[in-house]
Amino acid sequence: MSTKQWTTKRAEKLARVEAVASLADGKVLPTEKMVDALELLIKPNDRVVLEGNNQKQADFLARVLEQVNPDKINNLHMIMPSVSLPSHMNIFEKGIASKLDFAFAGPQSVRVAQMLEDGILEIGAIHTYIELYARLYADLIPNVALVCGYKADRKGNLYTGASTEDTPGLVEAPAFKDGLIIAQVNEIVDNTDDLDRVDIPGDWVDFIVQADQPFYIEPLFTRDPRLIKDTHILMAMMAIKGIYAKHGVQTLNHGIGFNTAAIELLLPTYGEQLGLKGKICKHWTLNPHPTLIPAIESGWVETVHSFGGELGMEEYARARSDVFFTGPDGSMRSNRTMCQLAGQYAADMFIGSTLQMDPEGNSSTVTHGRLAGFGGAPNMGHDPRGRRHATDAWLNMITDEEKQKDVVKGRKLVVQAVETFQDGSKSTFVDRLDAVDVAKKAGMPVAPIMIYGDDVTHLLTEEGIAYLYMAKDLDERKEMIAAVAGVSEFGQRVTAERVKELRAAGKVATPEDLGIKRSDANRSLLAAKSVADLVKWSDGLYQPPAKYRSW
Amino acid sequence: MSTKQWTTKRAEKLARVEAVASLADGKVLPTEKMVDALELLIKPNDRVVLEGNNQKQADFLARVLEQVNPDKINNLHMIMPSVSLPSHMNIFEKGIASKLDFAFAGPQSVRVAQMLEDGILEIGAIHTYIELYARLYADLIPNVALVCGYKADRKGNLYTGASTEDTPGLVEAPAFKDGLIIAQVNEIVDNTDDLDRVDIPGDWVDFIVQADQPFYIEPLFTRDPRLIKDTHILMAMMAIKGIYAKHGVQTLNHGIGFNTAAIELLLPTYGEQLGLKGKICKHWTLNPHPTLIPAIESGWVETVHSFGGELGMEEYARARSDVFFTGPDGSMRSNRTMCQLAGQYAADMFIGSTLQMDPEGNSSTVTHGRLAGFGGAPNMGHDPRGRRHATDAWLNMITDEEKQKDVVKGRKLVVQAVETFQDGSKSTFVDRLDAVDVAKKAGMPVAPIMIYGDDVTHLLTEEGIAYLYMAKDLDERKEMIAAVAGVSEFGQRVTAERVKELRAAGKVATPEDLGIKRSDANRSLLAAKSVADLVKWSDGLYQPPAKYRSW
Repeated sequence: MSTKQWTTKRAEKLARVEAVASLADGKVLPTEKMVDALELLIKPNDRVVLEGNNQKQADFLARVLEQVNPDKINNLHMIMPSVSLPSHMNIFEKGIASKLDFAFAGPQSVRVAQMLEDGILEIGAIHTYIELYARLYADLIPNVALVCGYKADRKGNLYTGASTEDTPGLVEAPAFKDGLIIAQVNEIVDNTDDLDRVDIPGDWVDFIVQADQPFYIEPLFTRDPRLIKDTHILMAMMAIKGIYAKHGVQTLNHGIGFNTAAIELLLPTYGEQLGLKGKICKHWTLNPHPTLIPAIESGWVETVHSFGGELGMEEYARARSDVFFTGPDGSMRSNRTMCQLAGQYAADMFIGSTLQMDPEGNSSTVTHGRLAGFGGAPNMGHDPRGRRHATDAWLNMITDEEKQKDVVKGRKLVVQAVETFQDGSKSTFVDRLDAVDVAKKAGMPVAPIMIYGDDVTHLLTEEGIAYLYMAKDLDERKEMIAAVAGVSEFGQRVTAERVKELRAAGKVATPEDLGIKRSDANRSLLAAKSVADLVKWSDGLYQPPAKYRSW
Repeated sequence: MSTKQWTTKRAEKLARVEAVASLADGKVLPTEKMVDALELLIKPNDRVVLEGNNQKQADFLARVLEQVNPDKINNLHMIMPSVSLPSHMNIFEKGIASKLDFAFAGPQSVRVAQMLEDGILEIGAIHTYIELYARLYADLIPNVALVCGYKADRKGNLYTGASTEDTPGLVEAPAFKDGLIIAQVNEIVDNTDDLDRVDIPGDWVDFIVQADQPFYIEPLFTRDPRLIKDTHILMAMMAIKGIYAKHGVQTLNHGIGFNTAAIELLLPTYGEQLGLKGKICKHWTLNPHPTLIPAIESGWVETVHSFGGELGMEEYARARSDVFFTGPDGSMRSNRTMCQLAGQYAADMFIGSTLQMDPEGNSSTVTHGRLAGFGGAPNMGHDPRGRRHATDAWLNMITDEEKQKDVVKGRKLVVQAVETFQDGSKSTFVDRLDAVDVAKKAGMPVAPIMIYGDDVTHLLTEEGIAYLYMAKDLDERKEMIAAVAGVSEFGQRVTAERVKELRAAGKVATPEDLGIKRSDANRSLLAAKSVADLVKWSDGLYQPPAKYRSW
């Protein structure tokens, strides 16, 4: 007969809930008593999830956590998908937390690097988003989750709104492993029927609190067409003709860059000229980019599933429910976990950018003094070897030589789109990634690589496309990379003769090889040249944030 | 100004809901009118999800669907994770459905193969589970989902119970894309408070119906220790010492086999003798295997997250909530999507078995006349190249040669455990997988491979372990596979001299090399020798199904 106690976590949770009984009104905690409440609900050494997404942060709870007494609460192990607010790092500086597992650090990336160097902070690991969520079910089960929604009823049912994002991915594991779930919301309503819809069931949520102010949303995925340069347009033309159309890409992911914004804005113009409508780019996994509006309105896009929402796109998504995922209430629904899964397993192609690439094609956005993390790129920017369904694009990656074999598989297209110089002066191509030195200095077990060179199938620069999936070995891959490295020193590492051979073999293509005139690559090709144009395309449904309004 | 209609899916859904208004009482459809209801709610050519899991099927809805008039409803495109019931195939035979996308076909695998050959059935693709869920957000969005739960309230809130399994993964996409969600339940209660807990929010569910009888659950993951043979025990000893301990495996997945059941039952005996407790096998992604009870009771297991439930393990899981994931109501919670994600991204190791392996190490369970599908194996049985966090086991896969490089990555352990002969007579090793011919005959674009040879890091047979991750090239990998292929013809393809070299290099290990006496490998090592022993270990909490009770 076992004498071991087997329900200690449940008992611990109940004791903590009991400890705030005098503060709480049912599940509702008072806004002004939250410091007291967290000091009772959190214990030293706890693993604490703090919802920080691209678009939505539990900012009030972060500010409260920053105010707890470090004598009472310290050595917290923080789990944050995105480290984006000053308060996210202040809790380390104040001695409340000591260890961090994360996926992305935007504006805080310099501070993360500095605090790591100063020994204030220990990094568990840099993850890709769903890798971090996955660990919540195994070796990184949280004690507490601090999350964020728009509205809750008094039973704890949560409406997370269009930016549902990471909330389901962060809540489920602790909710079913005797963790405490505390949600800040902008508004508490009395009845479930007063909620737009239920995104998280109330019995998964222990406490709700009305935030002192509505949570802040940054319109991260809005790209002003006025900032798109001719180089972006040239690269976009090459991408559309030399990659998307060549391989028949149907399901794809686009990120935040101007290169991909240019592609979105060229589909209704250049794409239409090439007769590609209905043939490529039907299913998308991406945030609701305003720059996708012209392609949607022109009938290019069948479906969009999103990681998160985008400020200003709410009414447009609602009115285009055939395209976007929306709830029974009509408002948009996002879900980073499921969108990352779709981007990994259902997508033909990932296209992304980087700050540095080494001669073998390895890339990283971790540079000296900046620990940026990778977000979703590692998950979507690799060949998912568990995939078993075939599509035209996936099959198109099988080389003629491979076709001779009995056992063969297709491959995901992983496109790196980079200009050969960053900010016009710093070479993107480097002999050794900064990430290698950063790792050595910080004692990381391996260098933090965003995308490994052998996962990259296409390298696109303003010089042309290197079809890396066709490289017969590592040496040829290096030559092909050099062939599109332009006037950088790296571009000199392959002879003109050899580049000719690679072009003749179809392994490298210049704009000329693709039948693209560089002089055609200009802003007149953009379906929308300004945010005002995007609003017009949307029938006035897109409501850009103030900073993008200039009219 | 756009003249296109953008909310046609919503309008279509509302029209269908309206069409059954006279039959329905709010969201409740009458059991005896379900044929009429489905004839109004489903249209020809619809994409229809039919919940078929390992453990839980929407069996009533499947039987109803079989009865609709094929003149009214036909050419359905069925999406079924697991094809397991006769009715699942009858709908094709009766002309109601024509196309199938699936992940696993157990007892129906022969019929799937036959109907494909007869042209009655078109296969979309064979998927791994989460690949199939992923496509529901992109190019395979369903019109209707027929799912299964234990209980619902009249608002549609669903309690799916310990076998939550695929339900969340199947419901979310159509619920937010104007699909119709119809759930069968064993019981309808009046109020939300009468539900044990809410697993799916009511406003994601359009209709509920009480099934004519409770849904059937098969205790698929129960292995009777009496059927474990000495060979299983020998292989289990090698696995524990030569793989789990050697590499320090902490987070792992086990499947349904007797080999892994033997490992589970050897941890508290052989594992303890080796002093491994607390050093390996702490975090598990697996169904609640009864054979894991002795290891749990002995303190080996910190956490178990499950794909689904297991009949008879309900009370045990409830009483061991420190180990299992349970809801606020105390009952177990599973979720195949999240468990597959944990098995992919958080696990150090996958171990599985196969029916056939070719000389390069490719394997498949698709054989002539049997289209079995692969379930979760392809997802967990590959190196997830998006992974960025390091663990000891993952780092341990880096070879000395690789360590010299700046950019290097660890690797997931993918172990194939096979006896060299199936049923004692048929060689597991074949020159050409049946799957290659099946694919050609059925016009599949590529052969259905379960696990690709270059993803396998370890091959374990009763002859020994081949450490395939150490192979310097394909030729050496082939030799290493032959070295453990035993008395089969394949075992002759490598010379005794070469095997000696491979053993000396640590690339192959026999039981003797590992310090394991074959004579020690017998049933006396099992921590439990019968199901009755498992019940005793569990303090009577495990309640085995009748067919496993012999006392």
